[in-house]
Amino acid sequence: MKLHRLAVALVHHPVLDRRGDVVTSALTNLDVHDIARTARTYGVGRFYVVTPLAEQLQLLDRILGHWRDGHGAGYNPDRKEALSLVAGVPSLAAALDDWQRLCGAEPLPVLTAASRDGRLTFRDCARMLAQQPLLLVLGTGWGLAPELFQNGWPVLTPIRGAGSYNHLPVRAAAAIMLDRLGGQSG
Amino acid sequence: MKLHRLAVALVHHPVLDRRGDVVTSALTNLDVHDIARTARTYGVGRFYVVTPLAEQLQLLDRILGHWRDGHGAGYNPDRKEALSLVAGVPSLAAALDDWQRLCGAEPLPVLTAASRDGRLTFRDCARMLAQQPLLLVLGTGWGLAPELFQNGWPVLTPIRGAGSYNHLPVRAAAAIMLDRLGGQSG
Repeated sequence: MKLHRLAVALVHHPVLDRRGDVVTSALTNLDVHDIARTARTYGVGRFYVVTPLAEQLQLLDRILGHWRDGHGAGYNPDRKEALSLVAGVPSLAAALDDWQRLCGAEPLPVLTAASRDGRLTFRDCARMLAQQPLLLVLGTGWGLAPELFQNGWPVLTPIRGAGSYNHLPVRAAAAIMLDRLGGQSG
Repeated sequence: MKLHRLAVALVHHPVLDRRGDVVTSALTNLDVHDIARTARTYGVGRFYVVTPLAEQLQLLDRILGHWRDGHGAGYNPDRKEALSLVAGVPSLAAALDDWQRLCGAEPLPVLTAASRDGRLTFRDCARMLAQQPLLLVLGTGWGLAPELFQNGWPVLTPIRGAGSYNHLPVRAAAAIMLDRLGGQSG
């Protein structure tokens, strides 16, 4: 299934740090590249990088500029194609606004968390996506801050492997989620 | 399903570069971390980093030492646990030898390729794994060199998303493969 009615948001604020404090995490270049490439593979509509810090948004623009228009665009057109999905926004609300504008319908945020008891199965999430645009919300650092879970938005079931170890990189979690939602497993 | 009879090999030689030449690619720190964390999540038995270059194996040892025994071990015990799966080896043959020694049975290599017509489905691969130990072989750079495909080893079906774009990071491909083989999708 093509996921063109799905957008992904990678949130750098509000997220938790290792001590459980709410912080703004720093942009990671490789998160942007990896998740853009995976999003492009699965036909995701848009990939929002969310940070309230103006300098971080400028840094993102410089990265994107290199690959979209600069030397990188000619060197690696596949990367250009993936990074064309990326938009920097100052807040989750701004991501939702932009995604609504692009879809022409109100999108529903779907939260993700490794250590919460999320109830929305991947199968049901795929069904919801046939009905309305969704925004899949991923946290950096030690995960999305609790305040985001007080909006009544659905929370995806956590990815379970073989045991209790649940420290997937957000890049890997994004890949697994998009494959479960839109991949053609055989 | 716990993948304790599966090992992963990340090959830096022989692989292709962008022009299709056979080269030795450089170790990428984040490949080691990401694939180790994903492997640990799914209960994979061992993660071999394959490079014939002695200095690259020494670099790997320094990285692993930091997280296993050095400052990183106390700072991030979850990372230590993941990186304890990693072993640097000079060749795929050395990886197979070590995995056979650990399993007490001859492992079969399973190759992966984004742009070859691999026929082994993930479902059949999971069935094979119930019968014998396997070594899942991933290429860096532009993928595993053709010579590896002349051994008669099975090749996994490529990961398909929504279209023809097939430029997943190897870190993302590894995550998707392990989830398809051992994840509890819902």
